[in-house]
Amino acid sequence: MKKNTNSLDALNEKKVSRRDILKTAGIGGVGVILGASGLGGVLSINESKASSHETKGEIVPFYGKHQGGITTNTQNHVYFVSLDISTSKRTELVKLFKDWTTAAALLTEGKPVGELESNEFLPPKDTGEAAGLSPANLTITFGVGPSLFVKDNQDRFGLKHKQPKELVDLPKFPLDALDESWTGGDLCIQACADDLQVAFHAVRNLIRIARGKATLRWAQTGFQRTKQSDPKNETPRNLFGFKDGTVNPDVNSENQLNNHVWVQPGDGPDWLVNGSYLVVRRIQMFIEVWDRTNLREQENTFGRYRESGAPLGQKDEFETLDLEKKNEQGQFSIPVDSHARLSHGDGSEKILRRAYSYSDGMDVKTGSFDAGLLFLCFQRAPSKQFIPIQNRLAKMDKLNEYISHRGSAIFACLPGTKQGGFIGETLFN
Amino acid sequence: MKKNTNSLDALNEKKVSRRDILKTAGIGGVGVILGASGLGGVLSINESKASSHETKGEIVPFYGKHQGGITTNTQNHVYFVSLDISTSKRTELVKLFKDWTTAAALLTEGKPVGELESNEFLPPKDTGEAAGLSPANLTITFGVGPSLFVKDNQDRFGLKHKQPKELVDLPKFPLDALDESWTGGDLCIQACADDLQVAFHAVRNLIRIARGKATLRWAQTGFQRTKQSDPKNETPRNLFGFKDGTVNPDVNSENQLNNHVWVQPGDGPDWLVNGSYLVVRRIQMFIEVWDRTNLREQENTFGRYRESGAPLGQKDEFETLDLEKKNEQGQFSIPVDSHARLSHGDGSEKILRRAYSYSDGMDVKTGSFDAGLLFLCFQRAPSKQFIPIQNRLAKMDKLNEYISHRGSAIFACLPGTKQGGFIGETLFN
Repeated sequence: MKKNTNSLDALNEKKVSRRDILKTAGIGGVGVILGASGLGGVLSINESKASSHETKGEIVPFYGKHQGGITTNTQNHVYFVSLDISTSKRTELVKLFKDWTTAAALLTEGKPVGELESNEFLPPKDTGEAAGLSPANLTITFGVGPSLFVKDNQDRFGLKHKQPKELVDLPKFPLDALDESWTGGDLCIQACADDLQVAFHAVRNLIRIARGKATLRWAQTGFQRTKQSDPKNETPRNLFGFKDGTVNPDVNSENQLNNHVWVQPGDGPDWLVNGSYLVVRRIQMFIEVWDRTNLREQENTFGRYRESGAPLGQKDEFETLDLEKKNEQGQFSIPVDSHARLSHGDGSEKILRRAYSYSDGMDVKTGSFDAGLLFLCFQRAPSKQFIPIQNRLAKMDKLNEYISHRGSAIFACLPGTKQGGFIGETLFN
Repeated sequence: MKKNTNSLDALNEKKVSRRDILKTAGIGGVGVILGASGLGGVLSINESKASSHETKGEIVPFYGKHQGGITTNTQNHVYFVSLDISTSKRTELVKLFKDWTTAAALLTEGKPVGELESNEFLPPKDTGEAAGLSPANLTITFGVGPSLFVKDNQDRFGLKHKQPKELVDLPKFPLDALDESWTGGDLCIQACADDLQVAFHAVRNLIRIARGKATLRWAQTGFQRTKQSDPKNETPRNLFGFKDGTVNPDVNSENQLNNHVWVQPGDGPDWLVNGSYLVVRRIQMFIEVWDRTNLREQENTFGRYRESGAPLGQKDEFETLDLEKKNEQGQFSIPVDSHARLSHGDGSEKILRRAYSYSDGMDVKTGSFDAGLLFLCFQRAPSKQFIPIQNRLAKMDKLNEYISHRGSAIFACLPGTKQGGFIGETLFN
């Protein structure tokens, strides 16, 4: 298995440097005796969850009940692309998903999609920029958009009767300032990895495989603080300096995931059971305006303290919001127009957020940073989760003074598949 | 010292997980006895050079004879910005460099530029998104462009007589397709770190400090494969899948650096001694066209083998180019129009490259990837180094079929300074 080979390589090479050993052993003249029981245990997925800090050489299995990249511990980088289908043939579309499945399974193991050096009179099968790199926890998540089913009133691939009621274009929310070039798509690929070159390589090779069948519609890279740079493993901060993602379903609770993330039998079309709906929003953040705002205003905007992430009037980041609590002036500690209160609502709507920051240079129109949030969230039913939440936020969230929703799309992320099957089999078969 | 505190935190926290210990010890039931002599040694700069793989919590000292970010081992990410000066007052410009020096010294130690939580009725002094993160080997490198000295024939700050002969706009090279919005600048900041959020935070806070004195002109993020994902510590590959940076001056050889990188006494203005000239080019790469090209054509284009990086007809990546060697057909193994041969010339011109890849989503004009190389190179005298090399390349490099130079700038990167001094003191005093 390549998995083991990779990891052995890693361990036999530079990874076991004197510095590593010193660091692991702790500081000072400490003597430590170590024993390990074997490789299987070291690299098992459960271990990986238990120690989200250690990512070297890790593999997130591609095959399974669900696709990776949804409940996977959020990797350091994302490369997200939306695609349009250019073929009109259903058989070609099915072939694309089969080819993508094969390629994605290889890529997530850190392997090239074809031998690196082949016939010198042909283009190489793999583009080569990830040669020698570890899998870096790469996940590849495929989704299908509403326009795959019906576009311009055409039942393009005989799938119209299979379109989920939940998979429709999002409503136009107040204050939306969407740019067509960052909106929609027939298909999406979300590639997440702890190394952007690995994620880029994956997407590029998948798009290459799709030549003649699908074309790029839009693309966005994103980053978080790296786990390596965050010794305390805190909730990552967004570009406004606030912790983002404090309230999320517990990815280790099957119960919570079944309630809030995975499509269940009886929810809608059977083909999507064990899949999930992805809503993606490209949210520009007006960094310079925010930076001129005083701390109290910033904290009132989020409804949380900047440093600790605790709800206003409370102590701990992970405390339940006390929405009734009032301050000395008799006002709610967590203001009525604050982001935390409005997101929370009555607490019944939960979405699984996997948000990344983006930095796309300068906004040439304004001379400001073109930076913000690539907001990615997964859920069982957008009509009961993202949409009501965003309706509240769009109407009165104080944060709206500092942000603008510039891109938007919705996709149904397909269920996972077993070795020998393919992503999309439940939809196309 | 914050340095030690940070690192201690890191070591006391999650970093010493069971997985770390297993990994460090190797695989299987191996018993290892470890002893470490103390923290100072663990984190010293020399150790850091010896083991370029281990970057956790590391600090690259800001103060010194030279600025950081030039001979520093290339970090995983760059955030590069070009700025224009908006003040006309020399005193304000000097104050800016003093303030930047203070802030940059703090940032490279992983500290905020002011207390994180201050008066709640004022904007926070630090923007907060790097709170709790390690310094991630952050370096901040300041440079000054030709237009700082003379712009529209104006001696803007009484510095005209100090303008180096080498610090003039680059000539227009054949095939240049420069976009004004990616070109030039009065000042530059190159922030490199192993964490993009750390680099972004640094630049953002430095620009914030410059409010009223300088404005953003253009900005570009860049990435390499992360060192964590590259167990063999190979030469990084560019987005064409080829190793990039094989031939570089040895950053550990003072002699080579003095010959090729650092401005020497007698070279030109004294104020720039121990500084270096930076040439930056934003080079778009036509990924999709390249990917349709066969392997032989790709290798002939670079003059090297894709897999090994060795010169064509030779075995090892680091072998000297054998420019006389011929193949069975009697032609030069390394073609006359190949990138390697033309870059090499007679071997006398060497530049220190610190190139990064960029991925800026989709090029809306073509529907292709907007991706390529943020080419950054340092040298003692552009007229004798980058310019003759680029003249050769621009005329006949086979690679020109696959790339386009879209942005360009030149800066004089100032010498370093001691604690108590400031970057730019030799220029302004």
